[in-house]
Amino acid sequence: MAVDLEQALQARKARHATFEGLHYHLFSDDCPDVPRGTAVFDGQVVYGYPRIGRILALNPALAEQFAGPFWMEEKVDGYNVRIARVQGRAVALTRGGFICPFTTDRLSDLMDLSVFDSEPDLVVCGEVAGPDNPYLESSAPFVAEDVQLFVFDFMRRNQAEFLPHGRKHALLERFGLRSARDFGRFGPHDLDAIRTILRELNGQMREGVVFKEDAPGGRRAKYVTSNSSISDIRTTAYSILELPPEYFISRILRLVLFLDEQGLGRSNVLDERLGAAFMDGLAEALRQFHAERKVYHTFRCRFRERRNAQHMVSHLKRAATRHVHLSQRSLRREGDYWVLEFDRVYPTLNGLLQQLLSGGLMFD
Amino acid sequence: MAVDLEQALQARKARHATFEGLHYHLFSDDCPDVPRGTAVFDGQVVYGYPRIGRILALNPALAEQFAGPFWMEEKVDGYNVRIARVQGRAVALTRGGFICPFTTDRLSDLMDLSVFDSEPDLVVCGEVAGPDNPYLESSAPFVAEDVQLFVFDFMRRNQAEFLPHGRKHALLERFGLRSARDFGRFGPHDLDAIRTILRELNGQMREGVVFKEDAPGGRRAKYVTSNSSISDIRTTAYSILELPPEYFISRILRLVLFLDEQGLGRSNVLDERLGAAFMDGLAEALRQFHAERKVYHTFRCRFRERRNAQHMVSHLKRAATRHVHLSQRSLRREGDYWVLEFDRVYPTLNGLLQQLLSGGLMFD
Repeated sequence: MAVDLEQALQARKARHATFEGLHYHLFSDDCPDVPRGTAVFDGQVVYGYPRIGRILALNPALAEQFAGPFWMEEKVDGYNVRIARVQGRAVALTRGGFICPFTTDRLSDLMDLSVFDSEPDLVVCGEVAGPDNPYLESSAPFVAEDVQLFVFDFMRRNQAEFLPHGRKHALLERFGLRSARDFGRFGPHDLDAIRTILRELNGQMREGVVFKEDAPGGRRAKYVTSNSSISDIRTTAYSILELPPEYFISRILRLVLFLDEQGLGRSNVLDERLGAAFMDGLAEALRQFHAERKVYHTFRCRFRERRNAQHMVSHLKRAATRHVHLSQRSLRREGDYWVLEFDRVYPTLNGLLQQLLSGGLMFD
Repeated sequence: MAVDLEQALQARKARHATFEGLHYHLFSDDCPDVPRGTAVFDGQVVYGYPRIGRILALNPALAEQFAGPFWMEEKVDGYNVRIARVQGRAVALTRGGFICPFTTDRLSDLMDLSVFDSEPDLVVCGEVAGPDNPYLESSAPFVAEDVQLFVFDFMRRNQAEFLPHGRKHALLERFGLRSARDFGRFGPHDLDAIRTILRELNGQMREGVVFKEDAPGGRRAKYVTSNSSISDIRTTAYSILELPPEYFISRILRLVLFLDEQGLGRSNVLDERLGAAFMDGLAEALRQFHAERKVYHTFRCRFRERRNAQHMVSHLKRAATRHVHLSQRSLRREGDYWVLEFDRVYPTLNGLLQQLLSGGLMFD
């Protein structure tokens, strides 16, 4: 498949980028046959990971989306990466197609890179999850520290499609790669079995599942637990003023629909947890504001190479907006690693608190 | 004080209106010395009720806003009206300066109108509260049915200022007018006594208080309970998509600040009630949508005169927006009254539910 890079560059839908002397291009927007996040290294294409649509109710959506059987895999709460060997070195690409300095630095901790000796054109697709990551405050509950990689798909360079399910499992096993849990093969009418698994995942505070038809270009859909919706609300309290009201409402609706689907109905415990999700973040923001006159979250992650931590800070600063500022706290040696700490500061929430707490009159 | 109506009309800050053969003008925007909501009948001016600013923490705001003593009165959860006799008949004006067909129809039930025989230029300012009103879903907990008037200020025609506190109480007593509770006179440092009253009001699910300096043009400020903030969230679930995110966040912050002020801290019960406030409305919306494919609230109120009910429907239809439609259900005789029922329908929430529940994929 040919990728028309020149045309995309002219239309400003692709751009040039560099990392440690490596020059590449990435698609910052969808183009015909080329999804956003696609990266091109010397004519070698690593296709973007396609967006997966969400269903809000298993019934009737599974039957509407899937004519036949599908595999059900766990959806891990982390950030999406594609890992490939390009120009002789393994790199990790973000969803947007940038080389991630953090993930790339830590690749030897995340997976057995000898997979690329046997399969040099393989693209490993997975989720990086864990508390010590530079992007997300939330984290899969089963990763206690640092980060781990959970592989869920393989592609090949210059090919937009995923390897079939059987081939994927053979590769996972052969190279001992950690993968997202595979719950097996189901049909659109196995609602009871699917619901039972989701109830268990919900009880363990896990995010949800992805349904994948095992066919070239097969359909896919994701579905999340009610606890995942509550967790989303909790972790976004600080950027709440930048989000559209739909953000919260659709999560509360997902939650209500999940309960409906499970025949569970409302409970006081759930109401309490939803209320706490809204309150916790804002109460913490107030506490911070009283103590330090600013509202921020501290992130921490560790690197093998000092210069990659510096690349990461530059990368994040370029991505900062007027709604979220970035401020480095420290970069220090701890054992074999360099530990980076930085804050995301939220000027809009800060401004609102300033106004509310000044003792002046509010007209609303 | 002269009101420059001509200039305001030219600037489209005032407009003409009629009610039952009565012609008048109202200020739809603030003008110099003339607040929004001011109405002019044949050169007689009924000034708009001024907006009262809100404080979010008694400490330090009371000391910042008030140099000396002030009266503390209950803030009643209802809608603001000004009642005056113009061209020989008593009418009730909304906050925006329109004659309210409902309140005007029910004036003889709400107060002793002989006050205008003795004091023809009096303007009675108060809150109409109760479950059977055409504007609000929420209602003061101490009005069990229909509506009641709670007077909290007097003005005179052609004068923008309020009568002093002593004169107000003399008039209330003389004409047996029901008034908002007056908790007495306090100073900015009587924080303990003020907090105790607010804790009691909160326990009774009441809205809050207004602080009023007893001097010509004296300062005023309002302060609400945490339960009032929860109630606001509950009653706005249906119009949630039209409200800015600040609406919810500032209420959750008020709630956290009220607890701080009371030295109460967080509680599971409060978290649960906040969560329920978000969930109740949306769960009800889903139930309605499943059963009737539309999301609406039904209002009910009763009139002495059938034609006033019809005026009210026209008035509300003119005020409806693309976000809220109005649909009459019924108008029927019950005893001495005509009972009007109508629905407010919420097309934006309706559209979102349609999209979420279609069984299709959502990309968010």
